[in-house]
Amino acid sequence: MADFDMIALIEATKRGSALDDRAIAGFVQSYMAGRVSEAQAAAWLMAVCLKGLDDGAASALTAAMAACGETLDLSDLAHTADKHSTGGVGDKVTLVACPLAVAAGCTVAKMSGRGLGHTGGTIDKLEAIPGFRTDLSAKEFRQQAARVGLVVASQSHELSPADRRLYALRHETATVDSLPLIAASVMSKKLAAGASSIVLDVKWGRGAFMGSADEAARLASLMCHIGASQGRAMGAAVTPMNQPLGFSVGHVLEVREAVETLRGDGPSDLEALSLELSAKMVHLSGAAESWEAARDAVGEALTSGRALAKLAEMVRSQGGDARVLDDPSRLPRAPLVDVLRSPTDGRISAVDALGIAQAVARLGGSRKGREAIDHRVGVRLLRKCGDPVEPGEPILEIHAPSTELLEHAKTIAGRAMRVGDAAGPPKAEFEIRWVS
Amino acid sequence: MADFDMIALIEATKRGSALDDRAIAGFVQSYMAGRVSEAQAAAWLMAVCLKGLDDGAASALTAAMAACGETLDLSDLAHTADKHSTGGVGDKVTLVACPLAVAAGCTVAKMSGRGLGHTGGTIDKLEAIPGFRTDLSAKEFRQQAARVGLVVASQSHELSPADRRLYALRHETATVDSLPLIAASVMSKKLAAGASSIVLDVKWGRGAFMGSADEAARLASLMCHIGASQGRAMGAAVTPMNQPLGFSVGHVLEVREAVETLRGDGPSDLEALSLELSAKMVHLSGAAESWEAARDAVGEALTSGRALAKLAEMVRSQGGDARVLDDPSRLPRAPLVDVLRSPTDGRISAVDALGIAQAVARLGGSRKGREAIDHRVGVRLLRKCGDPVEPGEPILEIHAPSTELLEHAKTIAGRAMRVGDAAGPPKAEFEIRWVS
Repeated sequence: MADFDMIALIEATKRGSALDDRAIAGFVQSYMAGRVSEAQAAAWLMAVCLKGLDDGAASALTAAMAACGETLDLSDLAHTADKHSTGGVGDKVTLVACPLAVAAGCTVAKMSGRGLGHTGGTIDKLEAIPGFRTDLSAKEFRQQAARVGLVVASQSHELSPADRRLYALRHETATVDSLPLIAASVMSKKLAAGASSIVLDVKWGRGAFMGSADEAARLASLMCHIGASQGRAMGAAVTPMNQPLGFSVGHVLEVREAVETLRGDGPSDLEALSLELSAKMVHLSGAAESWEAARDAVGEALTSGRALAKLAEMVRSQGGDARVLDDPSRLPRAPLVDVLRSPTDGRISAVDALGIAQAVARLGGSRKGREAIDHRVGVRLLRKCGDPVEPGEPILEIHAPSTELLEHAKTIAGRAMRVGDAAGPPKAEFEIRWVS
Repeated sequence: MADFDMIALIEATKRGSALDDRAIAGFVQSYMAGRVSEAQAAAWLMAVCLKGLDDGAASALTAAMAACGETLDLSDLAHTADKHSTGGVGDKVTLVACPLAVAAGCTVAKMSGRGLGHTGGTIDKLEAIPGFRTDLSAKEFRQQAARVGLVVASQSHELSPADRRLYALRHETATVDSLPLIAASVMSKKLAAGASSIVLDVKWGRGAFMGSADEAARLASLMCHIGASQGRAMGAAVTPMNQPLGFSVGHVLEVREAVETLRGDGPSDLEALSLELSAKMVHLSGAAESWEAARDAVGEALTSGRALAKLAEMVRSQGGDARVLDDPSRLPRAPLVDVLRSPTDGRISAVDALGIAQAVARLGGSRKGREAIDHRVGVRLLRKCGDPVEPGEPILEIHAPSTELLEHAKTIAGRAMRVGDAAGPPKAEFEIRWVS
């Protein structure tokens, strides 16, 4: 790439011209080699934000990013499937869908992230289980994948290091909100992570990165295009994230809810989404021959308890105390639990996911800089959108470490729960839209 | 500016929102203080390139850039005027117009630049005069301004250091071609240079930065707006630069032509433009009460020889050998002079200014990195657009340091001279359009 010309690439991007795949690969390689400055990369990112990248250029960028670091070779494993959510509030789907998929024939050897901003990460949630280790060595990761079929470890720094640098640069330079850059960021890690099939859950709404369903669908479609261009079987669900998923937000509370769901006793939206995503993993990975067979297989994995047993096997294998899955009272608990009551009668008209996430953050349940997370704290919704309420009826439960933080969280959560007219719209079904 | 938020400024610029003047000043101050990274500045510059800045924001940017370094206080001098050209080929107007303006009552205490790219700088041209010093101390500069009324020194690094850094960053990041950024770059130095009236010559065409007259007029108008917003009397001429100005390109040849023009014996385009610009300087600075009086005054300065005497006074004061103004044969001369002949009969249809500049550059007459300039070399046009030619008739003269470079330059210059149909358009008058 001695003849790579960054100025020419920036100029072409600025003009909105079609870009050459080799020039884009040249950018990634030269940037990682220190031959393109941070300033040049920033100018290019802004040009991409404002002028876009076509699907081919986005694929070239993603492939180059994935190729510049380590890549996992999972080709010795059968029916490998990965699952990724763009991030939501109360999103514990990985803890449910991956055991379901594995119990139905997939292999899930997954690198996962920690929480970012207001959304919780799967790794943080798993670490709420006493003893659970997420920093597996490459050897441990592979052995467990082969033996158990299910392993979830924290992402090592070597997968898509270009994404790590570009992600930081995008946040520094206000160049975050670009569909091709978001898609390349997500998909470069997914490509490097090696699964042959990838199922995405692209969320939209108040508690998500994407504001509208249409915007989420465009991102989903672009990510499917990128994955398919690199030979992966792709599926993407577009799902709402205006109110939290399920009832619980907060690490320990979410682990409990995931386990309840695997017992057949979870919130309907969480169960429906987990079954749908896991069936897609099973189908795309070739572990089932049809969508119907995949649906049947994950349904059986749920009702038989085999998915829960698979989760327990993973927890034990990664050093966690699997007894918490049978007896959740063994999980750490916040010292204070109090409820918020409805001020009036009517019907819940909104449960603002972002507001609930902020209340949990105020309790100490999210990442702020380098402070440790308090896994015990959180919020449990006792009512959700469309539920009727009476005056004085408890509508949510707060798990707090102190009375001071309890009161702060109550104020924030209280603003997030809106009670409207009793004649307002009743509870709606959770809507899943597939894009490929 | 502790509360300045660069991310918010980039986001607002990216959206094309109206920007707060204080935020723009905060950017310049924070960037110069190292609190805004090169990457953030680069992203902002690209957002400006693609979304623009309104006139108020461009003025705020320029004022903040001018204010961040040294500023010259010329308020003790009468009728101060400055003159700036956006750069052209064969543009020796400063050497003619400034003596004219001073002889007609202005004070011109001018900081000038060296050549950039294919265009020559006034400082480089003056240094073609044996002994001429351009690196004056602040004290020397002021004393000469008061005593002679005319001084031209090289720009010290302290005038608009923000421009120096942003200019380099724009070239690094392909964010050069933005009218507000170009205007801010030029005007920040002009504002810091302290004159109360500023006359601009904004060139368009093959040999200029701006491609079209309309684009040049927009830049001119924006620069006038910026200067006026900071209390300066402003005028801007929009002038063509498709063929070189005058006949000579190259440092010594241009000094000779400037002197010939001050003797009343120069090319008509150079004389017309010099009289027009100097009259505007005289009028705007208040040295004449009307445009007509200003025109008369510079006309008298030319015909009386007082302008040439003023140039001689400046040359002597800055250590130069003023005898070269009476006897140009004392100027250094290139060892080889040869002519290019017309291959056919017809009429000159184009003299590509950029091509002529490239021929002079090939001879060693422009800045390339840190190499010294050969002041002696250059090209003299014997015919210009619209002139009829016979086969074999000399159409240009090349002053070269060696036969090898002579042949290279001949090839390049030959491509720049186009001979068309004898029935083509005859010589047109040099067109000057005023913008304010």
